[in-house]
Amino acid sequence: MRRILKAAILGSTGLVGIEYVRMLSNHPYIKVSYLAGRGSIGKPYGEVVRWQTIGQIPKDIANMEVKPTDPKLMDDVDIVFSPLPQGAAGPVEEEFAKHGFPVISNSPDHRFDADVPLLIPEINPHTIALIDEQKRKRDWKGFILTTPLCAAQGAAIPLAPIYMNFKMDGAFITTVQSLSGAGYPGIPSLDIVDNVLPLGDNYDNKLVKEVSRILNETKRTIDQDNISLGATTHRVATIHGHYAVIYVTFKEDISIEKIRESLDSFSGEPQKLNLPTAPEKPILLTNQDTRPQVYFDRWAGEPPGMSVVVGRLTQINRRTIRLVSVIHNTVRGAAGGGILAAELLVEKGYISKR
Amino acid sequence: MRRILKAAILGSTGLVGIEYVRMLSNHPYIKVSYLAGRGSIGKPYGEVVRWQTIGQIPKDIANMEVKPTDPKLMDDVDIVFSPLPQGAAGPVEEEFAKHGFPVISNSPDHRFDADVPLLIPEINPHTIALIDEQKRKRDWKGFILTTPLCAAQGAAIPLAPIYMNFKMDGAFITTVQSLSGAGYPGIPSLDIVDNVLPLGDNYDNKLVKEVSRILNETKRTIDQDNISLGATTHRVATIHGHYAVIYVTFKEDISIEKIRESLDSFSGEPQKLNLPTAPEKPILLTNQDTRPQVYFDRWAGEPPGMSVVVGRLTQINRRTIRLVSVIHNTVRGAAGGGILAAELLVEKGYISKR
Amino acid sequence: MRRILKAAILGSTGLVGIEYVRMLSNHPYIKVSYLAGRGSIGKPYGEVVRWQTIGQIPKDIANMEVKPTDPKLMDDVDIVFSPLPQGAAGPVEEEFAKHGFPVISNSPDHRFDADVPLLIPEINPHTIALIDEQKRKRDWKGFILTTPLCAAQGAAIPLAPIYMNFKMDGAFITTVQSLSGAGYPGIPSLDIVDNVLPLGDNYDNKLVKEVSRILNETKRTIDQDNISLGATTHRVATIHGHYAVIYVTFKEDISIEKIRESLDSFSGEPQKLNLPTAPEKPILLTNQDTRPQVYFDRWAGEPPGMSVVVGRLTQINRRTIRLVSVIHNTVRGAAGGGILAAELLVEKGYISKR
Amino acid sequence: MRRILKAAILGSTGLVGIEYVRMLSNHPYIKVSYLAGRGSIGKPYGEVVRWQTIGQIPKDIANMEVKPTDPKLMDDVDIVFSPLPQGAAGPVEEEFAKHGFPVISNSPDHRFDADVPLLIPEINPHTIALIDEQKRKRDWKGFILTTPLCAAQGAAIPLAPIYMNFKMDGAFITTVQSLSGAGYPGIPSLDIVDNVLPLGDNYDNKLVKEVSRILNETKRTIDQDNISLGATTHRVATIHGHYAVIYVTFKEDISIEKIRESLDSFSGEPQKLNLPTAPEKPILLTNQDTRPQVYFDRWAGEPPGMSVVVGRLTQINRRTIRLVSVIHNTVRGAAGGGILAAELLVEKGYISKR
Repeated sequence: MRRILKAAILGSTGLVGIEYVRMLSNHPYIKVSYLAGRGSIGKPYGEVVRWQTIGQIPKDIANMEVKPTDPKLMDDVDIVFSPLPQGAAGPVEEEFAKHGFPVISNSPDHRFDADVPLLIPEINPHTIALIDEQKRKRDWKGFILTTPLCAAQGAAIPLAPIYMNFKMDGAFITTVQSLSGAGYPGIPSLDIVDNVLPLGDNYDNKLVKEVSRILNETKRTIDQDNISLGATTHRVATIHGHYAVIYVTFKEDISIEKIRESLDSFSGEPQKLNLPTAPEKPILLTNQDTRPQVYFDRWAGEPPGMSVVVGRLTQINRRTIRLVSVIHNTVRGAAGGGILAAELLVEKGYISKR
Repeated sequence: MRRILKAAILGSTGLVGIEYVRMLSNHPYIKVSYLAGRGSIGKPYGEVVRWQTIGQIPKDIANMEVKPTDPKLMDDVDIVFSPLPQGAAGPVEEEFAKHGFPVISNSPDHRFDADVPLLIPEINPHTIALIDEQKRKRDWKGFILTTPLCAAQGAAIPLAPIYMNFKMDGAFITTVQSLSGAGYPGIPSLDIVDNVLPLGDNYDNKLVKEVSRILNETKRTIDQDNISLGATTHRVATIHGHYAVIYVTFKEDISIEKIRESLDSFSGEPQKLNLPTAPEKPILLTNQDTRPQVYFDRWAGEPPGMSVVVGRLTQINRRTIRLVSVIHNTVRGAAGGGILAAELLVEKGYISKR
Repeated sequence: MRRILKAAILGSTGLVGIEYVRMLSNHPYIKVSYLAGRGSIGKPYGEVVRWQTIGQIPKDIANMEVKPTDPKLMDDVDIVFSPLPQGAAGPVEEEFAKHGFPVISNSPDHRFDADVPLLIPEINPHTIALIDEQKRKRDWKGFILTTPLCAAQGAAIPLAPIYMNFKMDGAFITTVQSLSGAGYPGIPSLDIVDNVLPLGDNYDNKLVKEVSRILNETKRTIDQDNISLGATTHRVATIHGHYAVIYVTFKEDISIEKIRESLDSFSGEPQKLNLPTAPEKPILLTNQDTRPQVYFDRWAGEPPGMSVVVGRLTQINRRTIRLVSVIHNTVRGAAGGGILAAELLVEKGYISKR
Repeated sequence: MRRILKAAILGSTGLVGIEYVRMLSNHPYIKVSYLAGRGSIGKPYGEVVRWQTIGQIPKDIANMEVKPTDPKLMDDVDIVFSPLPQGAAGPVEEEFAKHGFPVISNSPDHRFDADVPLLIPEINPHTIALIDEQKRKRDWKGFILTTPLCAAQGAAIPLAPIYMNFKMDGAFITTVQSLSGAGYPGIPSLDIVDNVLPLGDNYDNKLVKEVSRILNETKRTIDQDNISLGATTHRVATIHGHYAVIYVTFKEDISIEKIRESLDSFSGEPQKLNLPTAPEKPILLTNQDTRPQVYFDRWAGEPPGMSVVVGRLTQINRRTIRLVSVIHNTVRGAAGGGILAAELLVEKGYISKR
């Protein structure tokens, strides 16, 4: 049995912070020992948190005090999870890495640093080797590892097995995302009731850029030239769960059955290593005509919310297919993805008891 | 000045029925003279109708009695508008056509009869000539003309100028549709709050089939082989207005600016003939990064709701573009489209005072 | 340790049926052995159920076949839970009672039979004695016990300790109820998006009548004349959880602190007997200015959803107070209340292994 | 015919600002000549405004430039409408009044100044005489007049005829308010989807205080001692329209029919003077069991949204009744109420061409 690792959660009262707290409250060897926050320092976590998820605030955590985001106060912390917002995250995460902490970040600020992994543990686990280079180049004892944008994961997870095994030409993505992806207070209610809200070029491009990098980092069975991706992103009045419709085009005729098999059999290091937060299947396929649905499929898998549900798999023409995915954005797409990354890093020797 | 034509509205208390009533209350030469219904016969329209649209029930209409759906009671009616639901519409519309009425139908039952027009007045106006064949073959004094599925119109209207002028290869459509498209009671609330509801293969295929037929009936400046269409359709918790994301692929490199021009300058018979319900522009282009939005753009144009708003026009790669459209499903996509069709038929001599 | 009792759930695929399945999947001595349904007989439960609640369908239950609602097929069943809809429930429940089954009903059909208990276990547990009279008069081996309307429970639970201990004059209730209370398909989405839907006189009166009966059946420390109740009931676009604002008037000056104490210390037979589904506190008081809220408080207590959260306790004038409650309508207000009733009946010897 | 008065609208791009623009675009003698704003100065109004109301931005207004909130730039302005937010409004309004402008304010900052009217034109028109005192005491050429909180008007308008004619004892109000009442960005979407949001003591008390003042300023046919009011206020996911349930208690037995008559015949100065924005009936009574509803009744009256719809009128006991109201919060409850106030002031000689 492993020794217990102590975790600090930055932004612990936020929408991803609460999922870290919830998921770690049952973790076999990672235990929350430090709840960092901003506005509510000194107050009991249970009094200040907006617990917008399933279950109840774990009782022992509810009584813990929210503390400052200061590496010098975290002597006995072994891992730092950082779901801080864009802009705020960058310098804070660097400071923690300098102070020797392994930082698992769900924030965009360092996602495209050349020496920082952008990790989906099932897809590009070998990229954690970038950490060696990062520590050497930056002369840090700690390091930063990032996980992709929640919506990028909802597209990249089903696209990875397809890209790895078939001659893809492109993918045209349309997302219908939930409100929690924008944090709190996030989207004003008057923008979303009786409306569909486009997120605009900037968000579209971010999604394309992240999915591209991740697919490029897969280990492929075939040579792949560049593929062409397009994304159109939106929010609607759902609380959790990002929905995506993906049309995939190929350079040669494809068989929908082979695509189905590659999705169904998709599995990676986390499954091989039997990591505690790894779902048995990263992709759960459904054949139902009107599934997946955000409400009914976002909590799929075990741990709940760690599997992406893929369905509506259809051949459009000889070289084009369509599929649909639902991902739980704050679980698989953020906190759960971060915990799974931490488990992989522990297994590979990148994180240990200090 | 034209003589006043008297119109009967079948299903007049339904969601499309009320738009017919609202739009015709100001019409220069079509006047509602018969409100047909089912459950509420004998009662004043204003007491039984669910007025889920803008404005108030026109006072003279509010006091009119709802009457049976019986051609024999409609001696002085010149036009029949039929937004009856699938299945119910078919035989009723035939009966009215047999009795000599011009029937403008928004229902699917006769959309693929070979001798029945499936009309978007700006796109395939010449297909009204099918009516001659229809009357001859069926030995009817009246006739049936249909308008397409609301969601098909939201895709076909922006695709038409592109298809007519450029070598399209295919189009991959994702719709996010409103609740009123399903009628009342329609979608159960528990299916839609905090959810995205896929409509399934049947609906997807219907949309593809209708858009294909309409595009095939355009007058093209270039030869077009077959194109490949895919559609993925959904409902979310919006009341009116269908949103569509469309990726269009081409057989040769295209220029986004030329596409933009073809959309911006798109216009048809209704504009040429200055029909009363024709919007100045069937397509209103927006360059705003987060528009069109369902709430803010569904009532675009004049008459309100008769223009389709198109935006997010973007080049994805040399041979692929992306655009987004918002259409008011019960106005342009149903009642308004039906009235515009009637006006074209009047102009072309297919409907006259009996 | 108790012997395992086998339970049949009628209407098992409905919104209350699924809560019975979920809550009983961990029950110490009641086990689901028969899933009755209507439309989906012969199919695996997991394939046909709309699992609109937390957690996932228990795996062993998912594979069970849905079976007919027929007492003759339920030889080894010890308890029948009946969340059947109004009208359908009445004759079916009688048939089961005649066949010797204890029937715990969440349906209105028998709620006002003079010999049928209308039970909230913490409030009027002594009324289970009506069962003796019922069996004798009707010459049944089994019996029917009912639980009140979900919304009536949300009002009756906080009113009970007040009524028992203070000279109440009246209560003026306004409810804002969730969609699941109307079942599926239930409320049409077009009635509820961007709307507040009044439920009308019939529903208002039902609530008043049930709360009146329950309060009259409390054991009071003081004499009470008749009180006057008023209710105004609504639905809004919430999925689960009924919200109620209650103004309570008194015949003499009251102290808000004494009211608070009576609510906070409220407890009953289920707590005394330590029944497995009894929450430690039937009423959880909150002092937060903007709580309770439906989203954040409906799952309160342990088991989740079994406590009613009461807050906004305020003195309006010397003889009037205001309070607000949130109840989970399909848990405490239906399935959970039914299971708690069953546990009380087991404890009192009214249900045993057949 | 009157001379045209030129109006400036402060906060013209806000949710009340747009209703001023919309309603004044057809006004017989008040014309928008100055659009003041903050963030978007120098830009065309049509490009920066979020037009969250019916109809389209009037074309002439769309091209007007948004300008600074500076009285020195408004030489030819005759009236200033100020729907500025709390805190910001106070000093700005004083500055405009000092500069000689009549300021009609929808903001709370001056509502309880002893020399400032808090006006509902049908209820307390004589209070405009306070303006004389205000100008004298403050030595201002201009003045400030305020209109009440939107939700207070939804309660005060139906309570006024009751209070004026019957021996009221108290009123217990529960509101279910729309999002637009909180402005933009206002309520975060994650607070309102699948939720009912209490507004807390501060808001409750504000409503009580305003309704009390207004009722005290009515001209009564009978002596009234103090009455006792209670309010519990909420928001739900509706865009426009505040809903209120009001239980009214009396000091003597009352007749529901007499109450009904007093509501139905309620009328005031604006109706007598036939002011352009005065609805024929300030209160529209409905007898339908499930009306009023927010979606269907908020635009009642002519001009649309100027009548309050009252229904569910029911006798609870000999001395208690229940009624329900729907008011359009940004129309009757804000901009429309402000314009009606301006018309009364013009008629009474308090505003004229400068």
